[in-house]
Amino acid sequence: MAVYTDITEQELGAFLREYDIGELLSYKGIAEGTENSNFLLHTTTTSFILTLYEKRVDPGDLPFFLGLMEHLAKRGVTCPLPVERNDGTLIGEVAGRPAAIITFLEGMWPRRPTAVHCRAVGEALAKLHIAGADFGMTRPNALSLEGWKTLWAGCHERADEVEPGLVAEVEADLSAISSAWPSSLPAGVIHADLFPDNVFFLGNELSGLIDFYFACNDLLVYDVATCLNAWCFERDHAFNITKATALLAGYQSVRPLQQEEVEALPLLCRGSALRFMLTRLYDWLNGPDGAMVQKRDPLEYVRKMRFHRQIRSANEYGLVQQ
Amino acid sequence: MAVYTDITEQELGAFLREYDIGELLSYKGIAEGTENSNFLLHTTTTSFILTLYEKRVDPGDLPFFLGLMEHLAKRGVTCPLPVERNDGTLIGEVAGRPAAIITFLEGMWPRRPTAVHCRAVGEALAKLHIAGADFGMTRPNALSLEGWKTLWAGCHERADEVEPGLVAEVEADLSAISSAWPSSLPAGVIHADLFPDNVFFLGNELSGLIDFYFACNDLLVYDVATCLNAWCFERDHAFNITKATALLAGYQSVRPLQQEEVEALPLLCRGSALRFMLTRLYDWLNGPDGAMVQKRDPLEYVRKMRFHRQIRSANEYGLVQQ
Repeated sequence: MAVYTDITEQELGAFLREYDIGELLSYKGIAEGTENSNFLLHTTTTSFILTLYEKRVDPGDLPFFLGLMEHLAKRGVTCPLPVERNDGTLIGEVAGRPAAIITFLEGMWPRRPTAVHCRAVGEALAKLHIAGADFGMTRPNALSLEGWKTLWAGCHERADEVEPGLVAEVEADLSAISSAWPSSLPAGVIHADLFPDNVFFLGNELSGLIDFYFACNDLLVYDVATCLNAWCFERDHAFNITKATALLAGYQSVRPLQQEEVEALPLLCRGSALRFMLTRLYDWLNGPDGAMVQKRDPLEYVRKMRFHRQIRSANEYGLVQQ
Repeated sequence: MAVYTDITEQELGAFLREYDIGELLSYKGIAEGTENSNFLLHTTTTSFILTLYEKRVDPGDLPFFLGLMEHLAKRGVTCPLPVERNDGTLIGEVAGRPAAIITFLEGMWPRRPTAVHCRAVGEALAKLHIAGADFGMTRPNALSLEGWKTLWAGCHERADEVEPGLVAEVEADLSAISSAWPSSLPAGVIHADLFPDNVFFLGNELSGLIDFYFACNDLLVYDVATCLNAWCFERDHAFNITKATALLAGYQSVRPLQQEEVEALPLLCRGSALRFMLTRLYDWLNGPDGAMVQKRDPLEYVRKMRFHRQIRSANEYGLVQQ
C-alpha cells in the first residue's frame, strides 16, 4: 500500500479541466494498491478514484485494463467505471504519469474472509469469466511460464538467503510445472489478482471487484487456482477446506468446471503459488529499502507450493463434481 | 504520512455502534498525518475522519485536543468537529488504540503556497488565538525549552554524523535562546504545528484548519514564528519576504502585535526553527528504518536557524509596525 507520487492542486486542477465531473473539493492519497498511486477525490458531484500509473505498469496496457472495466461494468459485473474525458478518451497525464479517473465503489474488503465471502467470490469470478468472453481486446499473461523464468533469473542467486534449499526446490517446481502445463483448457479474460483487498462487500453482499491491472488472457481455471490460494488459507497457513468448498461451489453454480479443468486444478494451484512466491521473492530481494511499501513474505507462498505438491485430486480441495 | 494500524471491518463495526452517524459504506487509510493512523469513512449520511492515536500521543491529552476543536468550531474557526458518541463522550477504542471520529473538512492543502495563502493563514491564526482565549483547559507545551533539552539528549551524540559541527552549533543556540527567552509576552492557546498540510483551501479561500495534536498553551507570537518558518521559505531555502509580509499583515489585521512581541520575534523564530530541527534530527537518528513514514531532513531547519540568527529586527521579516 503506497502513495508514490504526490500532486499539487494546480496539476490536478489542470488535469480535471478535461473532465466533466464537477468542482474539486478535496483529494487524499489512499493506502491501497501496491503498484500505483491512488487518490480519493471528492467533487461537487460525487467521489472518484484517481490512479497515477507508476513505472511497473506499461502504458500500452492501459487501454486493455480500462476497456475491460468498461466492458464488464456494462455486462453487470460491478467494478469501477473509467470516466471519459471531454474528448472521449480515458487516459490523461498528471505529474508525468499516465492517469485515469474511475468511479468510486463503496464497500469494504474483508480482512478476515468467511466461507460466505468465499462463495460470493467464486460466483463473481465465474460471472467475470462469462462477461469477459466477448471482450474485443487481448493481453497475454506476462506472469505465466515465461515471466516466471525472468523473475527467477532476477533472484535465484540470493534465494537461498531467504530459505536454505529454496533454489533447488524452485528449480524442480519450475521444471515440473512447465513440462506438465496444460494448453487446451478453456481460456479467456482472467482477473489474475483477485485477492481479498480487491473484492468489496457491504455486509455479506459482494459490492464490487477492483484493480484489474493484472488482467490478461489465460486459462480460466488458473484464476480459480489463484483465488483458492488467496482466500482459503488461514493466518497459521492451514488450508480451510470449508472456504475452498464454498468458493468452488460458488464458481460452479455459475460456470461448472469441465472434467479437464478439474483434473488440472492441483497443478494450476502449484503454478499460481509459484507465481506469487516469485514476485514476492523478487521484491523481497530487489525492492528498495525504506520505500513506502510493505514487503510481503515469499515464504507464505513457499508453504502453499508445498501444500499443493502433495494434492492428488481436486476433491481434496473440497470440489464437488457437478 | 502513514497508516500505522489497519483495522478489520468487524472492529470498526463494533466501534461505530457507539455512534449515530449512519451505516458504514467504506473506509480507506489515508496518507496524511505523521503521528496517527487516519481513515476516511463514508457512511450513509456523509464523510468522516477516524483517527487512531498511536503511541506518541498521550491519551491524557486527548480531552484537551478534542475539546479545543469543539470550542474553536463553536466560535467560528473552521476546524473538524469531534463527533459525540451515544454516551456523550468523544473518545473510544479500536484495535487497542484510543480513537475518535471527527467531521470531514473539504479543501486542499497548498503544495506551493502563495502570498495570498500566507495572508489568509496569518488571519486564521490570529482568529484562532482570539477564539482560544476563553477555552477552559490548559496544556503546557511539551516541545518548549525543557522538551528541547530532552530531545537533544537523545541525539546529540550522533548529531555530527548529520553535519560536522552541528553539536557545537546546537549547544550554542540552546544556551543563547534559553537565556534570552521571554516570559511576559501574551500567552494562550496556540496551534503549534500550522504547516501548509494542516491548512485547507478551496481556491484562494481558506476552508479550515486541521491537526490540533500539538496544540498547547504558550506565547502567541511563537505560533507566528512557526508559521513564518513553515510558510515563508522557498524550496531553495530562500526566505520570501513577500510571503512573510503578507502573513504578518494578515495576522495583524485581526490581532495587532504588541511592541514586546515584535521585538521578540527574531528570537522566537530561532527557537521555533530549533524545535523543528530537533524533532527531525531525533527521528532521523532514532526512527525505525523502513517504516511507512517519510523522514524529514533536519538540515532544512538548520538553515533556518542560521537565517534567523543574523536577523536584527522584525522589520527584516517584512513586518509593518501598526
